[in-house]
Amino acid sequence: METSPFVLGDDTLDVLFREARSVNAFSDEPVSAEQVREVFELVKLGPTMMNIQPMRLLLVEQGEGRDRLVPHMAEGNRTKAQTAPLVAVVAADTDFHTSMDVHFPHKPGIGDMFAGDDANRYEVARYNTALQTGYFIIGIRAAGLHAGPVGGFDAAGIDGEFFGGTTWRTQLVINIGHPGENPWFDRLPRISADDAVRTV
Amino acid sequence: METSPFVLGDDTLDVLFREARSVNAFSDEPVSAEQVREVFELVKLGPTMMNIQPMRLLLVEQGEGRDRLVPHMAEGNRTKAQTAPLVAVVAADTDFHTSMDVHFPHKPGIGDMFAGDDANRYEVARYNTALQTGYFIIGIRAAGLHAGPVGGFDAAGIDGEFFGGTTWRTQLVINIGHPGENPWFDRLPRISADDAVRTV
Repeated sequence: METSPFVLGDDTLDVLFREARSVNAFSDEPVSAEQVREVFELVKLGPTMMNIQPMRLLLVEQGEGRDRLVPHMAEGNRTKAQTAPLVAVVAADTDFHTSMDVHFPHKPGIGDMFAGDDANRYEVARYNTALQTGYFIIGIRAAGLHAGPVGGFDAAGIDGEFFGGTTWRTQLVINIGHPGENPWFDRLPRISADDAVRTV
Repeated sequence: METSPFVLGDDTLDVLFREARSVNAFSDEPVSAEQVREVFELVKLGPTMMNIQPMRLLLVEQGEGRDRLVPHMAEGNRTKAQTAPLVAVVAADTDFHTSMDVHFPHKPGIGDMFAGDDANRYEVARYNTALQTGYFIIGIRAAGLHAGPVGGFDAAGIDGEFFGGTTWRTQLVINIGHPGENPWFDRLPRISADDAVRTV
């Protein structure tokens, strides 16, 4: 018997990575905002640079909010976004630096280092939100839900629709639900470790 | 008894998020490059935009390679980087578009859309590498290892030292090992879902 290199069982790794797939068609089984808030409470524990944790979520339920979101999706993504039980708009808070005295209390005033350069601050918020989005997708799967991240949308349109007067900026849209009929394509080929991992 | 919102047990969630911490001091227990290659083989299954999977890893063992890396770390990060059993330099391959015919085979030639604009291609590589870095940190923990991501380093210096003549660009450095003495600080405060999650 081969020894696994993991401390978690195969069933767990299947749920998180091996059998998990980006879902394109959903069943009718509902997903509540509360479920995804619980996922957030878990994945917010993952590390970010200087604990800035800039990821924010707008959970868009079916109904009026969804009807406002869908027109900002690329045409090929509209049916999925309309029919998903719940949609999360992942945003980056570009004003993360104003709460660093709370989240990084041993370095009072450290947020000031980000105050002057808006472009750099956006870049830092975007990068760390992406890192947290990785945790979030894993957390969705840990809750037995399926994620369908989609990149085709008008970010400025979503910002205008939902985030006017705030410092939240749209980064990614993730449809959330349970698989319906023909929920996914064949798994696409992955790079080999021989090409992607080097050792010195 | 309260029902858990997760399909994975508390022990698993502890390993991945709740008790996992960024480690700053390591025990002597070794970590092999092969262990981290196995982590890569798992986490490469996570989703990226159009399956571009741009994350690359340079695994730096103790010895000559490590001695070349450490001077490019910020002074406060050198001891950790010197003593960690293994260090992973996470890089983004800015030439991901040249293999899209392999990884996204149902859309021949789609990589051409990224050929003209180097700045955009870098941005796409960086964003998706950050997403994969989130998966990677979770995968390290799933292998019973501990990750210490550090952002303080001279990226251009590391690129010049290790990635000359390649299209790999340094994004993050992650020390990997097992906790030693006083391995971590107190957990820093996290944002509340009331501030970070909204519903419409």
